[in-house]
Amino acid sequence: MDQTAFMIGFTVMSLASLAIYTTGKKTPPSHHHTLLHSAVPFIAATAYLAMAFGIGTLIKGDGSATYFARYADWTVTTPILLSSLVLLAFHERGKTGEVGGYLTSIIVLDVLMIVTGLISSLAAAPLVKWVWFLWSCVAFLGVLYLLWGPLRAMAVERGTALGAAYSKNVSFLTAIWFLYPIVFLVGPEGLKIITDPTSVWAILVMDIIAKVVYAFFAASNLEKALHEHARQA
Amino acid sequence: MDQTAFMIGFTVMSLASLAIYTTGKKTPPSHHHTLLHSAVPFIAATAYLAMAFGIGTLIKGDGSATYFARYADWTVTTPILLSSLVLLAFHERGKTGEVGGYLTSIIVLDVLMIVTGLISSLAAAPLVKWVWFLWSCVAFLGVLYLLWGPLRAMAVERGTALGAAYSKNVSFLTAIWFLYPIVFLVGPEGLKIITDPTSVWAILVMDIIAKVVYAFFAASNLEKALHEHARQA
Amino acid sequence: MDQTAFMIGFTVMSLASLAIYTTGKKTPPSHHHTLLHSAVPFIAATAYLAMAFGIGTLIKGDGSATYFARYADWTVTTPILLSSLVLLAFHERGKTGEVGGYLTSIIVLDVLMIVTGLISSLAAAPLVKWVWFLWSCVAFLGVLYLLWGPLRAMAVERGTALGAAYSKNVSFLTAIWFLYPIVFLVGPEGLKIITDPTSVWAILVMDIIAKVVYAFFAASNLEKALHEHARQA
Repeated sequence: MDQTAFMIGFTVMSLASLAIYTTGKKTPPSHHHTLLHSAVPFIAATAYLAMAFGIGTLIKGDGSATYFARYADWTVTTPILLSSLVLLAFHERGKTGEVGGYLTSIIVLDVLMIVTGLISSLAAAPLVKWVWFLWSCVAFLGVLYLLWGPLRAMAVERGTALGAAYSKNVSFLTAIWFLYPIVFLVGPEGLKIITDPTSVWAILVMDIIAKVVYAFFAASNLEKALHEHARQA
Repeated sequence: MDQTAFMIGFTVMSLASLAIYTTGKKTPPSHHHTLLHSAVPFIAATAYLAMAFGIGTLIKGDGSATYFARYADWTVTTPILLSSLVLLAFHERGKTGEVGGYLTSIIVLDVLMIVTGLISSLAAAPLVKWVWFLWSCVAFLGVLYLLWGPLRAMAVERGTALGAAYSKNVSFLTAIWFLYPIVFLVGPEGLKIITDPTSVWAILVMDIIAKVVYAFFAASNLEKALHEHARQA
Repeated sequence: MDQTAFMIGFTVMSLASLAIYTTGKKTPPSHHHTLLHSAVPFIAATAYLAMAFGIGTLIKGDGSATYFARYADWTVTTPILLSSLVLLAFHERGKTGEVGGYLTSIIVLDVLMIVTGLISSLAAAPLVKWVWFLWSCVAFLGVLYLLWGPLRAMAVERGTALGAAYSKNVSFLTAIWFLYPIVFLVGPEGLKIITDPTSVWAILVMDIIAKVVYAFFAASNLEKALHEHARQA
């Protein structure tokens, strides 16, 4: 049953990668958004292919599974999604160092969030599991602070149109990202309230929303904003 | 016999790293090309040293070897070689976000090509091996598409001199990179038509061409192009 | 006894991360320095938490310990510290490619220095241990060459104030970084002259100096330099 979910994941993600690239804008300043957003489901497709073959899947002592492919996927795809938001907030302005400083710090927090989540998933002793889950949440809060604090302020400064696009995109991403720690918490890696197949299917739907639906949503908001931004200028 | 190849690899790569740096241009806009191209054989030297000591070498059930050091080397050196091409295509123009978008997507495809190649090398079951080999080729096609499609168009737009330098460099790199999946395919990790020592020596020669000869070739093309570009402007 | 050191490390590093961010400048061109320098102890805090739980700690055949969490920490934090110096040397000027070339080559050397140090730590045979220790020192020399050669020249070109700030920061970092290979050399991973607890406490003190004290020292030098630089201009 997991197998079906993984093959659906692989198929949807590969086709989505192609679709996002072929339908996306290929002229600056939108081209790099198209490139970034089509790279994301290509990585996810590879991770789903690995899970379908059981590659990087560890069945632990308590019978629950940790899918390393997921964590590897997230370690790369979430920084790309965040980069796209950081670049939107700076929109053609920030100097190399400034943009680099924001990218580095938000990606550091984000990757630590995922690595500590993996440690929590692997931990057998409850104390260890929950300390690392908590520390992962601290890193998540750091990511949210940067997204909603300084980066949002910067986007709004760039003009109402771009500020509105940034706010819409960051709201969408925040809402869907909040579901991941919750599914982890109640799933087989946490409190074991829901079963492994339920959590696999839930994450499949969430992945499609966070990586595919979001790509189209974000691109459409960006296009509208650039259009208005050009008229205002 | 492999040992000899690995020690030659270490020696050639260390000396080449030094030679590329000392003979390379140290003034902008060529300096960063010198830095990038001398970093590449330094990494390769470290990988050859590891292989000489058997560090990261796995002998699998069928007797064939997987050299993790190679895959680790390629995961870092091929993105650097691609970055140098991307920077040449943009030549002093692209905005941070635009360059970053191209770099991210081409490096994502490139690293996935290598990681999926490693999975294929480790797989015992033929179905698994060939599915991952194929997926690795799909990623390779993605890299080639970006190099020969949008990036080449961008380089040509920068002027005939720069466009010609880009085309020469990308042709050289494409030709030599095509040999790697072929050697993998016929080698002990694939169809086992050629033996491990043969494949080790073949890859040694290819590595020297792709990392050392290419560095001098690319630098000379860049210098000529910058010279002409300056006269045209 | 190690446990106490690790918990102190976790506590000091988490609080320092918060303190560096809250007291740091939040306006360009200093903001990204604040972000980079507060990310560093957050990563170290996570590594100390892992060591406190024994996560990633390997007791080898000779009874000595290798703490993988340390090497993982250093692999990310030292590139960030170097990035901050590179950005200071370029101060608002370098083009994307130029800055990227320096960042890539210095980070490649730096990460190889750490990875080869880890191989040296894991090696049982003395020959292997000392060859890799030496190769790690070669990479360290490469890092120092870039810091004190071309990057320093660039910083000095930006004006006396910025040149002086760069020189002070790079001297501090060089002095403290020199202690790490020495402690490794005499510690349980090397000649076993000092014991594991001694080396753990020594590295704790060094980490606090290199990551926390340095952050405040570097920020203060930068502020003074920017102040003077603005008056001179």
